[in-house]
Amino acid sequence: MKKVVKFGGSSLSSAEQFAKVKQIIDADPDRRFVIPSAPGKRNPKDTKVTDMLYACYEKAEKGEDFKKALRDIRDRFQRIIDGLHLKTDLSVEFRNIEEQFNKKAGQDYAASRGEYLNGIIMADYIKASFIDSAKVIFFKENGEFDHEKTNRTLSEVLKDAERAVVPGFYGSLPDGTVKTFSRGGSDITGSIVARACKADVYENWTDVSGFLIADPRIIDNPAGIETITYKELRELSYMGAGVLHEDAIFPVRSEGIPINIRNTNSPEDNGTWIVESTCQKSKYTITGVAGKKGFCSINIEKDMMNSEIGFGRKVLQAFEDNGISFEHMPSGIDTMTIFVHQDEFMDKEQQVVAAIHRLADPDTIEIEADLALIAVVGRGMKSTRGTAGRIFSALAHANVNVKMIDQGSSELNIIIGVANEDFETAIRAIYDIFVTARI
Amino acid sequence: MKKVVKFGGSSLSSAEQFAKVKQIIDADPDRRFVIPSAPGKRNPKDTKVTDMLYACYEKAEKGEDFKKALRDIRDRFQRIIDGLHLKTDLSVEFRNIEEQFNKKAGQDYAASRGEYLNGIIMADYIKASFIDSAKVIFFKENGEFDHEKTNRTLSEVLKDAERAVVPGFYGSLPDGTVKTFSRGGSDITGSIVARACKADVYENWTDVSGFLIADPRIIDNPAGIETITYKELRELSYMGAGVLHEDAIFPVRSEGIPINIRNTNSPEDNGTWIVESTCQKSKYTITGVAGKKGFCSINIEKDMMNSEIGFGRKVLQAFEDNGISFEHMPSGIDTMTIFVHQDEFMDKEQQVVAAIHRLADPDTIEIEADLALIAVVGRGMKSTRGTAGRIFSALAHANVNVKMIDQGSSELNIIIGVANEDFETAIRAIYDIFVTARI
Repeated sequence: MKKVVKFGGSSLSSAEQFAKVKQIIDADPDRRFVIPSAPGKRNPKDTKVTDMLYACYEKAEKGEDFKKALRDIRDRFQRIIDGLHLKTDLSVEFRNIEEQFNKKAGQDYAASRGEYLNGIIMADYIKASFIDSAKVIFFKENGEFDHEKTNRTLSEVLKDAERAVVPGFYGSLPDGTVKTFSRGGSDITGSIVARACKADVYENWTDVSGFLIADPRIIDNPAGIETITYKELRELSYMGAGVLHEDAIFPVRSEGIPINIRNTNSPEDNGTWIVESTCQKSKYTITGVAGKKGFCSINIEKDMMNSEIGFGRKVLQAFEDNGISFEHMPSGIDTMTIFVHQDEFMDKEQQVVAAIHRLADPDTIEIEADLALIAVVGRGMKSTRGTAGRIFSALAHANVNVKMIDQGSSELNIIIGVANEDFETAIRAIYDIFVTARI
Repeated sequence: MKKVVKFGGSSLSSAEQFAKVKQIIDADPDRRFVIPSAPGKRNPKDTKVTDMLYACYEKAEKGEDFKKALRDIRDRFQRIIDGLHLKTDLSVEFRNIEEQFNKKAGQDYAASRGEYLNGIIMADYIKASFIDSAKVIFFKENGEFDHEKTNRTLSEVLKDAERAVVPGFYGSLPDGTVKTFSRGGSDITGSIVARACKADVYENWTDVSGFLIADPRIIDNPAGIETITYKELRELSYMGAGVLHEDAIFPVRSEGIPINIRNTNSPEDNGTWIVESTCQKSKYTITGVAGKKGFCSINIEKDMMNSEIGFGRKVLQAFEDNGISFEHMPSGIDTMTIFVHQDEFMDKEQQVVAAIHRLADPDTIEIEADLALIAVVGRGMKSTRGTAGRIFSALAHANVNVKMIDQGSSELNIIIGVANEDFETAIRAIYDIFVTARI
């Protein structure tokens, strides 16, 4: 067994958190490769080290004095070192950083130092070898991640390592310059490392015990999701919560490596397993319910629309020509409704309407704003008759008017449109019927 | 008040039926303009006069002896004349027809004689003037109906008529040749006449007391529909039953003239009113439920489909390029399902799949066959919360697996996909919950 463990910023924000992480790593000898983030916030008012680095580098770039800012950053790390009673000396590192900042080595280099330094401390602390990601994770000249070169180099390097720390978030361009992934990129590093070493599990340690069935801002203390498939996860991505970077899924998914989301502050929790496919039934009929406000619908009517080949294509063309992607497109015989993001659509509203008129010559076009879309997702729905009945009875009972329903052949989800102001009520009604009442 | 009354073939198949029709016309002096069809079947094994005419003319065209066939047709009309104790003499007419058949005057001319002769008898019987449709209903040289010329001529002619008979089904081309509408074309003639004389009602008399909430082959003795809007009717056109020719609706709809479907054999029934818009609530939450078997679904998956502008358009392009129209297109985040007519799709299946791959590059495409689509339609559904809940609870209760749900912003209908074999069960469950149980 081989496990890759990635720890988020809040799991590594202080010596106390570092100690928890060491316990977790030491508890399981399979946890051999560790991907640390930069120190995150220690309390809600705190600043993440990455943000401190960005701000510090901005000063450097403007030619302002950044010594004080850099000293603050060093203090953050020194406190961790002292708290852990380590002897790690970052003097040389910080002299290098100062030098590079003066040379204006770039924002990416600056931002990456949080993970880099945290990695050095971590390696020292858990007695593992430190692997600088700039030497094993590569980008192509055009900025694209170099999948092949990385995998080749990384698997070679990891083959000989018993226990190693590979800092998250960055790699290097062909000329050696540091380049970072987009924010949240440590998840990607973890996934890449898991793939390269052919790990059995990719553990992603954060500050929540996995995914929740519903948004805790709407449902008090919602139940957690034990197992979720990649597909379900994508469908639930509606909830917008930055649960996991999209690009972080691809490397492990393509290798069939499961991801286990765990809580550093509550390591006894099983967390959530993200898997390609599973015969594990979920505890409830639904795996999750999520949604978002801020959609609008364009309702198009045309007599005999149904018998006009190409009508739907022409309507979509009008949206595409204006660079607007559509969410859903339920249709009757003579009606067709297109759901789009309101903020995207608003500016181009009249152009799109004009384009629909020009391309598809409809009878009428009506726009309804301030709608929310809710996705009820669950691989268990297919095998449970009456799921739809329960959902819509619950919504009726809660006095929610259903403005749109969309369920395709996958039977993995039902998408429901409601007014923005009914959004929370609807989520609660659906959660209650499936989880609280557990019908 | 001015009413245009059209009688179908079964309403005019015999002297007995003619007598009922006269009673209906005489019962209301507003019933001033009468559109007769050709005599229909008197019993299930009977032949319609129009079919006799087609067969007779076929002989004429092949140069075979058609005297006997024409005599049989004359007998049909003579029986009606004798049964009504009229003195109508069709000798000249039949001599003309024979002459024209010998001259090979065309199939359209032949077919139109049923309405023409029935119109002469009708005019004689109810003491109305006879207007030959060839003189008032016009087609353009390219075969298209000449809306403007017809309306101008017809409204002029009808202005002076107190009571007139205008045979259904045919008109004439610019050179005077007779041309017919497609089958069921008498409905169109009635609608054109109603428009030209600015009628208050267009009564369409047939052998059923209007539309039924559900198909009587599935539901025993289903309740009737009192009032239905044009839009609802279009949505229910799914039921495929040839209730009313599409082209028959346009002329009256554009003038706001309501259509009243009535039963010649049961004139005391109110029948069904077809209207543009109404504040009449329907008796039940649903106006009707109808459906059709023989669809298949093409289920397309692609990671990140949702964020790819133009994906949906490309998929529809693949269908359009192969001349296939789609029925519905429900979508999730990474999935999209297209419903098409199975018989249309079958032959081009592999071309379409290849085109989707080429144009949209999806991850997987799966085809599911033998599906039925059901439309639950009702203008009352929008104002009645919980309609969807009741439908899906009823279906779950009846053990029907719901494969697709599609409800757009119009809230006029919900489209449901089920397996072919669940079709009748589903229709029954929906009918029962809304009509029998009347919840």
